[in-house]
Amino acid sequence: MSGAVGTGAAPAPVLEPLAGGVTTTPGIRAAGIAAGLKPSGKPDLALVAAEEPVAAAAVQTRNQVFAAPVAVTRRHVADGRARAVLLNAGSANACTGEEGLRTAEDSAAAVAAALGCAADDVLLCSTGVIGVPIPREPFLAAIPRAVAALRDDAAAGDAAARAIMTTDTVPKKAAVRVSDASGSCVVGGMAKGAGMLAPELATMLCVLTTDAPLAGAALQQALQQACATTFGRISVDGCMSTNDAVIVLATGTAAQPPSPASVQAGLEAVCARLAEAMVRDGEGASRLVRLRVCGARSEDDALGLARAVADSVLVRTAIAGGDPNWGRILAAMGASPVRFDPSRVAVRVGDVTVCRGGVVVPFDPAAAAAALAPGDVDVTVDVGAGDAEATMLFSDLTHEYVTINAEYTT
Amino acid sequence: MSGAVGTGAAPAPVLEPLAGGVTTTPGIRAAGIAAGLKPSGKPDLALVAAEEPVAAAAVQTRNQVFAAPVAVTRRHVADGRARAVLLNAGSANACTGEEGLRTAEDSAAAVAAALGCAADDVLLCSTGVIGVPIPREPFLAAIPRAVAALRDDAAAGDAAARAIMTTDTVPKKAAVRVSDASGSCVVGGMAKGAGMLAPELATMLCVLTTDAPLAGAALQQALQQACATTFGRISVDGCMSTNDAVIVLATGTAAQPPSPASVQAGLEAVCARLAEAMVRDGEGASRLVRLRVCGARSEDDALGLARAVADSVLVRTAIAGGDPNWGRILAAMGASPVRFDPSRVAVRVGDVTVCRGGVVVPFDPAAAAAALAPGDVDVTVDVGAGDAEATMLFSDLTHEYVTINAEYTT
Repeated sequence: MSGAVGTGAAPAPVLEPLAGGVTTTPGIRAAGIAAGLKPSGKPDLALVAAEEPVAAAAVQTRNQVFAAPVAVTRRHVADGRARAVLLNAGSANACTGEEGLRTAEDSAAAVAAALGCAADDVLLCSTGVIGVPIPREPFLAAIPRAVAALRDDAAAGDAAARAIMTTDTVPKKAAVRVSDASGSCVVGGMAKGAGMLAPELATMLCVLTTDAPLAGAALQQALQQACATTFGRISVDGCMSTNDAVIVLATGTAAQPPSPASVQAGLEAVCARLAEAMVRDGEGASRLVRLRVCGARSEDDALGLARAVADSVLVRTAIAGGDPNWGRILAAMGASPVRFDPSRVAVRVGDVTVCRGGVVVPFDPAAAAAALAPGDVDVTVDVGAGDAEATMLFSDLTHEYVTINAEYTT
Repeated sequence: MSGAVGTGAAPAPVLEPLAGGVTTTPGIRAAGIAAGLKPSGKPDLALVAAEEPVAAAAVQTRNQVFAAPVAVTRRHVADGRARAVLLNAGSANACTGEEGLRTAEDSAAAVAAALGCAADDVLLCSTGVIGVPIPREPFLAAIPRAVAALRDDAAAGDAAARAIMTTDTVPKKAAVRVSDASGSCVVGGMAKGAGMLAPELATMLCVLTTDAPLAGAALQQALQQACATTFGRISVDGCMSTNDAVIVLATGTAAQPPSPASVQAGLEAVCARLAEAMVRDGEGASRLVRLRVCGARSEDDALGLARAVADSVLVRTAIAGGDPNWGRILAAMGASPVRFDPSRVAVRVGDVTVCRGGVVVPFDPAAAAAALAPGDVDVTVDVGAGDAEATMLFSDLTHEYVTINAEYTT
């Protein structure tokens, strides 16, 4: 039963990690090609397509400054169906006005013409610099090539994952087989995101595919729930982007699918692996911090306190310096709206307790330093008020982050 | 009329900058000595004292994790009167439990014994690392020496300002004479703060002195108003500390004081100069950014948008790189709760318009680069929705900030 995740009263589904990403799901093809949108000439256009229009859902940025592809996708996914997702790097197509919107709409039409479907069965995602017009001609001209390059093998899924990378240093893919007493299905996914990662939907693009038969409101709800507990609990810099989108295509072709609860568990497992991969690849990150806030009165309280800590640049620079500066953790929590009693708080780095009852306790500096060494760092904050808990993943704030973000557009 | 500030219907007071700081106010003495709290042996204990108990008010941190001196000062200033303010660097005396509280109370008693006043006429401020116990013996032993060192000259005011420095690189002092048709008074001040500077009371300590006759609720209200428009509108890293405090001592000895509105203008002028000095000395800062958000529906809207931009690490790293990345400014505004129409927004760096109608406009990159050169940078965001505006000061986020904060306690 390794890898099993409990889902309440139902028998726990078995989650078996699979190789590959979006194309691991039967009936899904993908492509990644170079359209000439990145100055480097690297692949920058990805396409993920089903064999016909299938059930689809999307979770998008709540930023009121949203990109043209976000607007188009919102309209096109409203009927709960889609055949393909077109994604580009090199331009966010955000703050690009009417012209950007027209280019986005025309790109959906171009995919539809080449695939033989309706334009509103094509969803769009863009990532890159905000405010830079997307080069219309090379973008549209490359689309038939992308459609022609569609394949259903693992290499095609990898090519698509690579084509959406920006400051990412590695492609991000995951897939699992979910099985329970009723049957099984596959969930695959790919994502990009390394900076501008905020709680409540990190700045990222993600496409999930599954042969599970979820559709309509049930698919939308399953996607939202999976995002809330995964992408909603990571932070690289606390900034919310203009282009965030998580899209799922569900073909429904699984002969004997598992229960909806098991599908949900599969979606969460893939999202969790992609979310962790994004934080691990966070811009300039030298450490992945797994912050567990426990002993809270409610999960909302625990999450609110965890977010306050994860978003504190003082906490994140301290961790980049390997500094067990628990006072900054308490200060960040104290500035949040969540009420707690500071005199009941305990803080551990790894297994080393550095604060108990809200005050310092003697600890071995060498052991604390080892627990904060580059790599994976576990920090536990016990609020001492109840039984609820929440975990957030975040990266440390390093010189390299400043370098990357000081020089991004220039 | 240079230096004049309008205050509505009343005739504008004349604000004349004076040399010095807290001791520029008649009847105020100060001292700054080394108590051995800083490992470097530098001055770390400051005292500011009036000749007898005078009107006093304080604005303190709203962090629910607050330091022992914050708790003691809250009690001691409740009656609206105080004789002295004792300030130390080297330990924040925060998260130090009952022992920290006892040491704070005993330090007030020690000042009172040496000065000949009641313990509750002594207010306290501490700054330094959170969670590190304040060394009780050297701290208490130094207090009689600090009282013996009290002088009313500019050198004593300077010594006090130097003794409260932590990561500050320069002492921060300001003084003005405020005159109107009714008369005149002096306002002096000193402050420390360079990091953990957040909007809504930056992380900082500040002592103001004046011979104006304001007292009680009027003094408290004047202080709050002065803080809101100055220290409430600066940001170095968006973090709220456990020790923030702004304290004013008002002797009331001015023979012919100006109107209360003029005193208010004087307090604001001194606070504004100290606030600007703090941002200019922001940890690792290479630029002071003066962000003006105009064309908003209300001042609250303008301030909300300005804060969202000032707290964005993506905006601040872009500015550290001299990058006119206006898209990040719009993205930060869009993630704030303030509603606006992105298609009406214009952004200027210096005199160079880089965005109009929410989209990029052609601009001279050399001129934009010059406007973003290290030093003072002016950024204007016109929301295109009304006539209200607000200005925030913030520093850029540099490698040096990361270095300072990664290595602060170790």
